Amino acid sequence: MAETDYSTRGAYVTGGADFTRDTNYIEDRIVEDPDRVRSSGGPTGGSIGNPRGGLSEGAQAWPVEAGRYRLVAARACPWANRAIIVRRLLGLEDAISLGTPGPTHDARSWTFDLDPGGRDPVLGTERLQENYFARFPDYPRGITVPALVDTETGGVVTNDYPQMTLDFSTEWGRFHRDGAPDLLPAGLLDEMQPVIKRVFTEVNNGVYRCGFAGSQEAYDEAYERLWTAMDWLEERLTTRRFLMGPTITEADVRLFTTLVRFDPVYHGHFKCNRNKLTEMPALWAYARELFQTPGFGDTVDFEQIKAHYYVVHEDINPTKIVPVGPDLANWLEPHGREALGGSPFGDGTPPGPVRPGEEVQPGRSPLYPA
Amino acid sequence: MAETDYSTRGAYVTGGADFTRDTNYIEDRIVEDPDRVRSSGGPTGGSIGNPRGGLSEGAQAWPVEAGRYRLVAARACPWANRAIIVRRLLGLEDAISLGTPGPTHDARSWTFDLDPGGRDPVLGTERLQENYFARFPDYPRGITVPALVDTETGGVVTNDYPQMTLDFSTEWGRFHRDGAPDLLPAGLLDEMQPVIKRVFTEVNNGVYRCGFAGSQEAYDEAYERLWTAMDWLEERLTTRRFLMGPTITEADVRLFTTLVRFDPVYHGHFKCNRNKLTEMPALWAYARELFQTPGFGDTVDFEQIKAHYYVVHEDINPTKIVPVGPDLANWLEPHGREALGGSPFGDGTPPGPVRPGEEVQPGRSPLYPA
Repeated sequence: MAETDYSTRGAYVTGGADFTRDTNYIEDRIVEDPDRVRSSGGPTGGSIGNPRGGLSEGAQAWPVEAGRYRLVAARACPWANRAIIVRRLLGLEDAISLGTPGPTHDARSWTFDLDPGGRDPVLGTERLQENYFARFPDYPRGITVPALVDTETGGVVTNDYPQMTLDFSTEWGRFHRDGAPDLLPAGLLDEMQPVIKRVFTEVNNGVYRCGFAGSQEAYDEAYERLWTAMDWLEERLTTRRFLMGPTITEADVRLFTTLVRFDPVYHGHFKCNRNKLTEMPALWAYARELFQTPGFGDTVDFEQIKAHYYVVHEDINPTKIVPVGPDLANWLEPHGREALGGSPFGDGTPPGPVRPGEEVQPGRSPLYPA
Repeated sequence: MAETDYSTRGAYVTGGADFTRDTNYIEDRIVEDPDRVRSSGGPTGGSIGNPRGGLSEGAQAWPVEAGRYRLVAARACPWANRAIIVRRLLGLEDAISLGTPGPTHDARSWTFDLDPGGRDPVLGTERLQENYFARFPDYPRGITVPALVDTETGGVVTNDYPQMTLDFSTEWGRFHRDGAPDLLPAGLLDEMQPVIKRVFTEVNNGVYRCGFAGSQEAYDEAYERLWTAMDWLEERLTTRRFLMGPTITEADVRLFTTLVRFDPVYHGHFKCNRNKLTEMPALWAYARELFQTPGFGDTVDFEQIKAHYYVVHEDINPTKIVPVGPDLANWLEPHGREALGGSPFGDGTPPGPVRPGEEVQPGRSPLYPA
């Protein structure tokens, strides 16, 4: 999860202060044509309007290569969940392998505690921190997921999650499956950019601003901003099947990972409690449809999600007790969104079954009954 | 609030342990005929089956007398809220005056911080603790509300909340208003006793058992017990207008004070989050009807309720930030419970307007718009 320096685990709230996200990442990129990118000048900054862009100052360009890179992405983390979803929607499973740290961690951050012997079976490391240090021995910032790791050196190539999924779409094209959706349709990029920006600042990050507010005033303001945006989304999705129109795009992936965590975590733990998601008719039906769409819900492990937030954020949940609720069976109820026209994949096709070994464990989601 | 020793404020959770409520109170009673009660032998123990009962060992009997006793009851506290509701349903406002401590307090417990000069205008004390000490200089247990205080000596007569409302019904009869409901109908007492007992152990106290659980195991068990009881209530209230039948009784008062706090506090703060109350159709319509019935909702201050729990329970909410939500406007929506027959007051009548000076402040409830 990309929100913090895990050398201060448990200290997410700074008294009297707004929550401020550290947005400094390792901005290397993995691209089809490194030379082109190196000579393209300015960075994209994760910009949707110019998704292929150039490089940030000091950043490097790495070549796309099947089997070389490993995506390390904890299912618990919404920013990592994005990358897991896009990898699967595009069919990049053969090209980019997946390592999944467990949901809870200590001050040194994410560990491969779910893997046999507590080590990632490809990287051989116990802690993702080792892979950051393999790249930069004095790496000073947060040990975050998602991270793409070079399996040849064991070093992290990039943890720049906004750019990562854009590159999956634009730079890894020759490895996409047949029927993969175009998540960044050229004709929609100008309209998508402000939508994605607002979703990020007000919703994806807005829930954290509520949960980690250091004062009542900071919380009250964050809550107001969040619900203003939620009402905007509710209105927008009342007439649109998906955020940008009749088919799914990158924007839907980015909103979905917050919505799926809303009632299990953000509503109570982060005090985003004007309403449950289930009380927002269009947003809830929209989220349900995505959940039921191959590539979305089948990546979601509700138990890991709850365990992560409630155990790791000791300063807002000192008992570390994880709620049993909410009841999640309603995620599988009919959504009725077909009436709005369109279809998730448009001219494309849904991805096939989840790769063996990458399934969510039984009992951790209504899609995977115990 | 009757749950704890406030000399250890902020320490509601004992690691590894179940939450256990201290049920030792000052068991004096205020009764119509002290001699009869003194010679009646055994105590009632708050028993509905024998509501007039006798005295506990060492307890005293005080005479009913209009104007002599003051009910000290914080609106925030569900146990105190019971007494406020019953006093108003029965029309005891002229006979028993009301003092209302503020919602938050320090280690020495409830204070009269909302009153001019920070002192109760009748008792003249700043802290309810002073009134406990006026009675027992070394009073060793929790300084709890509701408490009935003798205005002649300033000492607490009783804080035995289960017996207190029974005595309001059975011992204060000559001061009841015309049209006051019979909250303890003789023919229903045998059936009411197990209902009230189950509501107390599984729901009224059950939510605290969830919130103050000292281990995941204790919480999991408490959650299971709570929702088993909530499902039982949902079923019972699907065919019954009120808990015991076609009119309100003491049992409804006792359930209401927990239900009205459910979504604002217990759902998130105490992790009672299988469902919101609003997701339980019969329970929610039932709670809404009671809320809209004179004597119930007009005693409820949602802002005081939220402030109390989120500020006082530092060990489960260290930031002390109080949620803005949930949206409460829906408490005034039609409930449709008339279809089940009966009426809240049966042959009686609803109480008149709230006594001037006892109104909930504007903006603190959908019944009292800002």
